[in-house]
Amino acid sequence: MKLATLKDGSRDGQLVVVSKDLTSYVSAASIAANLQTALDNWAETSVKLQALSDELNNAQATNAQEFDQSQCMPPLPRSYQWADGSAYVNHVELVRKARGAELPDSFWTDPLMYQGGSDDFIGPREDIPLASDEWGVDFEAEIAVITDDVPMSSTPEDCKNHIKLLMLVNDCSLRGLIPGELAKGFGFFQSKPASAFSPVCITPDELGDAWDGEKVNLPLLSTLNGDAFGKPEAGVDMTFTFPKLVSHICKTRNVGAGSIIGSGTVSNKMNGGPGKPVSEGGVGYSCIAEIRMIETIENGEPSTPFMKFGDTIKIEMNDKNGQSIFGTIEQTMVKN
Amino acid sequence: MKLATLKDGSRDGQLVVVSKDLTSYVSAASIAANLQTALDNWAETSVKLQALSDELNNAQATNAQEFDQSQCMPPLPRSYQWADGSAYVNHVELVRKARGAELPDSFWTDPLMYQGGSDDFIGPREDIPLASDEWGVDFEAEIAVITDDVPMSSTPEDCKNHIKLLMLVNDCSLRGLIPGELAKGFGFFQSKPASAFSPVCITPDELGDAWDGEKVNLPLLSTLNGDAFGKPEAGVDMTFTFPKLVSHICKTRNVGAGSIIGSGTVSNKMNGGPGKPVSEGGVGYSCIAEIRMIETIENGEPSTPFMKFGDTIKIEMNDKNGQSIFGTIEQTMVKN
Repeated sequence: MKLATLKDGSRDGQLVVVSKDLTSYVSAASIAANLQTALDNWAETSVKLQALSDELNNAQATNAQEFDQSQCMPPLPRSYQWADGSAYVNHVELVRKARGAELPDSFWTDPLMYQGGSDDFIGPREDIPLASDEWGVDFEAEIAVITDDVPMSSTPEDCKNHIKLLMLVNDCSLRGLIPGELAKGFGFFQSKPASAFSPVCITPDELGDAWDGEKVNLPLLSTLNGDAFGKPEAGVDMTFTFPKLVSHICKTRNVGAGSIIGSGTVSNKMNGGPGKPVSEGGVGYSCIAEIRMIETIENGEPSTPFMKFGDTIKIEMNDKNGQSIFGTIEQTMVKN
Repeated sequence: MKLATLKDGSRDGQLVVVSKDLTSYVSAASIAANLQTALDNWAETSVKLQALSDELNNAQATNAQEFDQSQCMPPLPRSYQWADGSAYVNHVELVRKARGAELPDSFWTDPLMYQGGSDDFIGPREDIPLASDEWGVDFEAEIAVITDDVPMSSTPEDCKNHIKLLMLVNDCSLRGLIPGELAKGFGFFQSKPASAFSPVCITPDELGDAWDGEKVNLPLLSTLNGDAFGKPEAGVDMTFTFPKLVSHICKTRNVGAGSIIGSGTVSNKMNGGPGKPVSEGGVGYSCIAEIRMIETIENGEPSTPFMKFGDTIKIEMNDKNGQSIFGTIEQTMVKN
């Protein structure tokens, strides 16, 4: 099934079930007040939501209405956890190579993750508000999963069953603030403004064969200022699978229902090389920093600029028939 | 006023108003379902909660019941943000000195903060469950504030008015996991298990003169296995005040109501020296790592062990008359 959260003036919005083709929806208010409430009691609510979804997709739902992605809040407008991995180690290796640093061997066996801010996410069609566009503003296209309760010390195998929903993310980064912040040793803070999520989140079964229980085997599409920027395969070069990432976060603590765990920037290595832009026949990139790194490696300096006020970013994923799965993230950077 | 969250079988507990002397409480269910709901609409709910508090403290409340700290969940059993500062730079300097590293000058002007997990906090009288006691388990006694909504780019002066509640924290650390995790560059994750909070949170006015609008001018008391371990003055050597810490987290994003911002381990420098244990007439320490650092500086190696299964930690703060303000955090480390 597909779920979304519509704006209704409240902080947590109105939970709705959306049709597979994203054209219609029906309110789920009688089942749960909002998505967090549904996840708090997922064993029970998911059955009811699935029944409502079946009715909607079989054109049996009463009160079905036209679905408008621009009326969506993030599926979870705020959440109790947003933990983002760097599962595509190629991305990390490129960043390090650009500054002449080696990648420690452990990076291929021990997931790199950061704890992100989760108290005020941005909707899929909302502006990215920032006080300055001189901070090296970058988009980062990712996939994320939402879990139910995951007990401490759960193995990756255990964690497979705790992945309940999937969605897309734009995990914006302020590249200019990152070096100074990471040098302090405690990770990101000001360099990570609020993340945005796709209009719709889905249960894994909606992906059919494209979900293998561990990762999504489809390309993730990024369009910057109207030009195709990236279409890497999310199922390729994902060093750490989603169950592995979930297991990482529950090593020393219990994980609460509604936790969001991100894949990190989707990135393909492509035949051992650094990858090519879409315009040159490559799969391109899911963030600007990567192409700048490759430009630096090849030409000594980057030539693609970071985002400025007025720039737009679109992130989406289509199924094998070209049908949008999650709806589209479409954002414009604006001055706050 | 003083507020607490009682266990009622739900994830977010039952909000109650507690008497100043912590002996009685009255349900606030008619005002807000839980503390987060109250904070979501604080301008309105705080007035009603204050009226209820006045009734209770004037012995006019109907249905007042005996308050039992062991029935408390954390004031916010889960929250949308837990951001912890290192406001007592003396603590940071000591850690660095022990390993022979210099403290960058910027650490005295730019707050060091990390984003912590907030999806599953531990109650004030609940065990600290861990799979191993070989990870260098340490307590960290801190003070934290809870805010309402704080708009992006708010100044420290603006932020003063957004501090709505205060409480105590035990921000456990797994010292043995920290070096490897910080070396990866993205900050803490597995090295920070779930934090615990005091039974009661309070509005700043409850502190009287001890709250100067920026910090708490009272000693924070830590007792390890029954022995006084620390009593540093929380108002001394706090390089970054709470308004400054709140302003730090809203530089590039809006901050949502119910965000918890910690002071970091309370630590006093004491006449320029490294400080002394309570047993030697000093103010002692708010974590084990500090005394181990001082032992290392003085003797070449640490002699105080980290916590083992069965060890207990008690954290509290008394007013000038010796009356407990927040109730006590009392936890035992156990095998998960």
